[in-house]
Amino acid sequence: MAELGTLVLLRHGQSTWNAENLFTGWVDVPLSAQGEDEARKGGQLLADRGLLPEVVHTSLLRRAIATANLALDVADRHWIDVRRDWRLNERHYGALQGKDKKQVREEFGDEQFMLWRRSYDTPPPEIERGSEFSQDADARYAPLGDQAPLTECLKDVVARLLPYWESAIVPDLRAGKTVLVAAHGNSLRALVKHLDGISDDAIAGLNIPTGIPLRYDLTEDLRPITPGGEYLDPAAAKEAAAAVANQGK
Amino acid sequence: MAELGTLVLLRHGQSTWNAENLFTGWVDVPLSAQGEDEARKGGQLLADRGLLPEVVHTSLLRRAIATANLALDVADRHWIDVRRDWRLNERHYGALQGKDKKQVREEFGDEQFMLWRRSYDTPPPEIERGSEFSQDADARYAPLGDQAPLTECLKDVVARLLPYWESAIVPDLRAGKTVLVAAHGNSLRALVKHLDGISDDAIAGLNIPTGIPLRYDLTEDLRPITPGGEYLDPAAAKEAAAAVANQGK
Repeated sequence: MAELGTLVLLRHGQSTWNAENLFTGWVDVPLSAQGEDEARKGGQLLADRGLLPEVVHTSLLRRAIATANLALDVADRHWIDVRRDWRLNERHYGALQGKDKKQVREEFGDEQFMLWRRSYDTPPPEIERGSEFSQDADARYAPLGDQAPLTECLKDVVARLLPYWESAIVPDLRAGKTVLVAAHGNSLRALVKHLDGISDDAIAGLNIPTGIPLRYDLTEDLRPITPGGEYLDPAAAKEAAAAVANQGK
Repeated sequence: MAELGTLVLLRHGQSTWNAENLFTGWVDVPLSAQGEDEARKGGQLLADRGLLPEVVHTSLLRRAIATANLALDVADRHWIDVRRDWRLNERHYGALQGKDKKQVREEFGDEQFMLWRRSYDTPPPEIERGSEFSQDADARYAPLGDQAPLTECLKDVVARLLPYWESAIVPDLRAGKTVLVAAHGNSLRALVKHLDGISDDAIAGLNIPTGIPLRYDLTEDLRPITPGGEYLDPAAAKEAAAAVANQGK
């Protein structure tokens, strides 16, 4: 049996709405200039470490797609196979999409705010169909029909992510490939929760920094050889994770 | 039987080596700023005409890949399925790769220069293995082994392109999809030669302008309904084709 390939996770850098402190979810905003720089730095880390992806999986959102494009171009791996799927999308933020995080916090209070942001199984209210920041008319989700979410908690993300992990990413790893997954804070948290067997409670405390590739070498039964994986720039990861934890404060 | 999908060809815009008037071939140079603008304009034409690709095929070269990325982002179709293959690459320019077009013309004379550029079946001399602009050590061509070309004439490009057309692009068209092919002057000439049944002699006079999507609607037996296809901006296409014909003069 071929040796298992290496999994590399990359969270997209700052988007224009991150910069404005708005809830984004499935709203398809672009990277900011800073986010583009983060992606290129991520690609430089891949190149410097000789960790060269052979296939990339992204969400259907341009901030993850652009992150992959920019990082892979810097690493001279722009030509590898590409797979995209909505199951790698950011968590759908329901009725909070497009709203200012600070205003939501002030309106609903710290407790509700943190529940929506960090609880495992409490989704925000559903987004209204046809409203400004809903994806009802978006062609890319047409194949989902009525199954397209109107809001999600992290538990929902785990549930829709895992079929893609099993059916699309694992086969690439079993084929011995170095696999880059360019995605989002919550879809990557969902994957890391699964890989590291993190409890529903403990996942609340886990933040994945942006733009720093996170490497997982896995055993034959898909358990991490190093729990939590290994960031290609551990010092920067530690610093960035702390900054993410302070978001919205 | 489902109606056949629509084929859209897009030649990449100016690369840094186009700007410097160097033979490029398989050397993987980036788009110039002008080339990036051309790609975005191509994407705007797709959006304006409502011609929205559902899958994109590119070569393994970053000037075609970036063209597709930029155009699709403008058209809000960055999330579609992606296929890449070396068979869509530019013609391999052999020993001329990296050389100045004007100098080659002066050194070898007008006749030899035009023969290498435009004859159907006279390839330039082979590139020396291990030389500066050869692709011997390039991981993306490792699967080709000894089959990787060291030079190509247009006839060679037709021969290596058609298996990909038949096995990868046609099935997408038969599935009713709008298919974008983002590629190069000579790989697109090879495809157009096949589609329009252009003779070996007449193909020498055909130039495909950069950055202007060329639409082909096809019959069930894959013949163009409108011979030569339809440029989304016919006036600009006419102007640009004339400029390409003057290259190297």
